[in-house]
Amino acid sequence: MPRINFQLQLAALKDKLLAMAALSQQALSLSLEAYLTGDMSLCDHVKEIEAAINTAERDVDEMAYDLLAKEQPMAIDLRFILSVIKINGDLERIGDQATNIASRTQYLHESPKISLPIDIPDMGEKVGVMIRRAIQSLLEADAKLAESVLAMDDEIDDMNRDVQNELIEVMQQHPVVSGQALNAIIISRNLERAADHATNIAEDVIFWVRGSDVRHKLSLAEAD
Amino acid sequence: MPRINFQLQLAALKDKLLAMAALSQQALSLSLEAYLTGDMSLCDHVKEIEAAINTAERDVDEMAYDLLAKEQPMAIDLRFILSVIKINGDLERIGDQATNIASRTQYLHESPKISLPIDIPDMGEKVGVMIRRAIQSLLEADAKLAESVLAMDDEIDDMNRDVQNELIEVMQQHPVVSGQALNAIIISRNLERAADHATNIAEDVIFWVRGSDVRHKLSLAEAD
Repeated sequence: MPRINFQLQLAALKDKLLAMAALSQQALSLSLEAYLTGDMSLCDHVKEIEAAINTAERDVDEMAYDLLAKEQPMAIDLRFILSVIKINGDLERIGDQATNIASRTQYLHESPKISLPIDIPDMGEKVGVMIRRAIQSLLEADAKLAESVLAMDDEIDDMNRDVQNELIEVMQQHPVVSGQALNAIIISRNLERAADHATNIAEDVIFWVRGSDVRHKLSLAEAD
Repeated sequence: MPRINFQLQLAALKDKLLAMAALSQQALSLSLEAYLTGDMSLCDHVKEIEAAINTAERDVDEMAYDLLAKEQPMAIDLRFILSVIKINGDLERIGDQATNIASRTQYLHESPKISLPIDIPDMGEKVGVMIRRAIQSLLEADAKLAESVLAMDDEIDDMNRDVQNELIEVMQQHPVVSGQALNAIIISRNLERAADHATNIAEDVIFWVRGSDVRHKLSLAEAD
């Protein structure tokens, strides 16, 4: 019964990808907790998780490649495996963003404390929702849920732009804190990139479920 | 003779990917030329090329998926097609970085002109070399050339860090130019990301040629 065995292997691949997703989400949420609480041991933890993410990424890729090579899947199974390979890459990059946030948070921790007129935790919360929904849409093969992720991306882009404008003002008025302001701007950009990866994942889920490539179609529609 | 036809299709896929690579390289070099010369019509051109890149990305992906679905390739051909899919994504992201550089260059053009103690064109030149070598290593299936790309990435990381440190100084001493300094920092980061994508492409070439996954192995070796 090779095909039943194949379905079991696909399920195992999905489980591996979910474990990878859990690591990436944990890295991001710990990096934000470090920012919020000033507990720098969390930054070290994020860097440990990043190493685990890199190992997990290779495991997922190897299993996906083996399935492609040995089982020669067709149609929806093929699209699923290709989506897994792409989603895997995006999850790894979310881990990279988390690691960057942890490094920037360490810089901020070592600098004189200042209060900045921005709300990184709120932005981080929204990005976390996007990633969770993207993963859930994968779990439930739910293209509609995936679409809701795409809709959130513009909001994060706007938040990132606002952070930047606010902090340029701060730098102009209080040049002594330029270093801190710049690091906060970069954390905001890291979150914006994590949101882009969540958007990529959602697009891949839609591609898998519907068999259509939604990339760039939305932006073309918007341009009309 | 289906296998001969298949080899022709693989060659056609490679040609499509090379056209995609040419677009990405052109977008990046025009965005840097706009920065250097202040010719803002080049920024509009970069944005037109980005639209063409998005179309080309979908074409490459669709062709790769069709080949996987219809030909069920094995071993080195399978690895080649999977590498093409990944490289395609990295080339599209190099196009995104170029578009970002063009936008930041427009901001700088609309702001009072200042002289900054950094050398963006030199950094851009080096990143251009990395991308060219990565593509050439793909063309010639040359894993050694691909390795030389990996070796250059640290240099770009260092340059980016230096730009940032220099410009924090500038912001502290001349707060009125904080906006310009920040935009220059972001251009430097965009170049650093483009170099990361060149590195990803080189890793995929090595994976294709040698059948081994080099990701994260180098960094483990460095950690020893």
